[in-house]
Amino acid sequence: MGHLENVKIAILLAKMHEEIELWYPAIRLKEAGAKVVIVGEEAGKKVKGKHDVPATTDKAYKDVKADDFTGLVIPGGFGPDYMRKNKDCLKLVKDFHNQDKMIAFICHAGWLPISCGILKGVKATSVINIKDDMVNAGVQWEDKPLVVDGHFLSSRDPDDLGDFMKGIIKYLQEHAK
Amino acid sequence: MGHLENVKIAILLAKMHEEIELWYPAIRLKEAGAKVVIVGEEAGKKVKGKHDVPATTDKAYKDVKADDFTGLVIPGGFGPDYMRKNKDCLKLVKDFHNQDKMIAFICHAGWLPISCGILKGVKATSVINIKDDMVNAGVQWEDKPLVVDGHFLSSRDPDDLGDFMKGIIKYLQEHAK
Repeated sequence: MGHLENVKIAILLAKMHEEIELWYPAIRLKEAGAKVVIVGEEAGKKVKGKHDVPATTDKAYKDVKADDFTGLVIPGGFGPDYMRKNKDCLKLVKDFHNQDKMIAFICHAGWLPISCGILKGVKATSVINIKDDMVNAGVQWEDKPLVVDGHFLSSRDPDDLGDFMKGIIKYLQEHAK
Repeated sequence: MGHLENVKIAILLAKMHEEIELWYPAIRLKEAGAKVVIVGEEAGKKVKGKHDVPATTDKAYKDVKADDFTGLVIPGGFGPDYMRKNKDCLKLVKDFHNQDKMIAFICHAGWLPISCGILKGVKATSVINIKDDMVNAGVQWEDKPLVVDGHFLSSRDPDDLGDFMKGIIKYLQEHAK
């Protein structure tokens, strides 16, 4: 009943992530009928979040291709601090960008597209902690629960998860084949 | 015998800090004869680091003045992510800067002077994870164990702690009254 039966989303996972920003989007997308693949440094790896809750990756960054997905979701917490120094991860995100596919990020996750150099002139939001990093990267930063600019969707923190997922599902309904 | 008897250093502390980047500078400075005050959001507060090791603040940001210190040391880890959204902390760091007093930062600690807007054109280093944030903030980033530019001293990570403290002690010996 979610109308996302043809949608396949990659969600990125690294240690120290904000757990609810992984789990809520993953479960919400599956509820809506989408396929979800959890992607991290290694496949089949148990990874603990900021609050020690473990999650397990399905695939490694280097084993997946943007071609095979409809879009990308990047949870926040401190996971993106680790993702941004992984070259395979940076390449994967850039591939989604170059294919004009949805890149949705929340909280601290903006660090990753910053390190891909793809946010110049883009309207987006983030947790307040990294606002300066976003602005210095050329973002037109807005203090709103959901900011949509082209294929970029962004939200500020776990309190925005409802708006974040409403925005993502609406976008996917409009853009999925 | 450390010749730092007239030196008083503030070291900043917030949760999720890299423990050894707090403890090594604190003990090394005391060994050299300096006074050390641990400063955080609240005075007398126990704060856990990235690896759950607790440390306790002496004073709150708002209760100390740059006037009373010779210089400032900012440990890394994820502590600076919390410090940079505290207005009293930002004001304190800017006061050290405006008084031309030593600001020494290591690893992720560069996020704090970034948010003070005081790094434009400054030569500095950091952990590789935040290199893009440093460069976007106008830093002339160098991949070296210790970078000294005016009153700014910076190092990359815990492996650089020896060079970091040698640089700090040399700087303080040359600049303390």
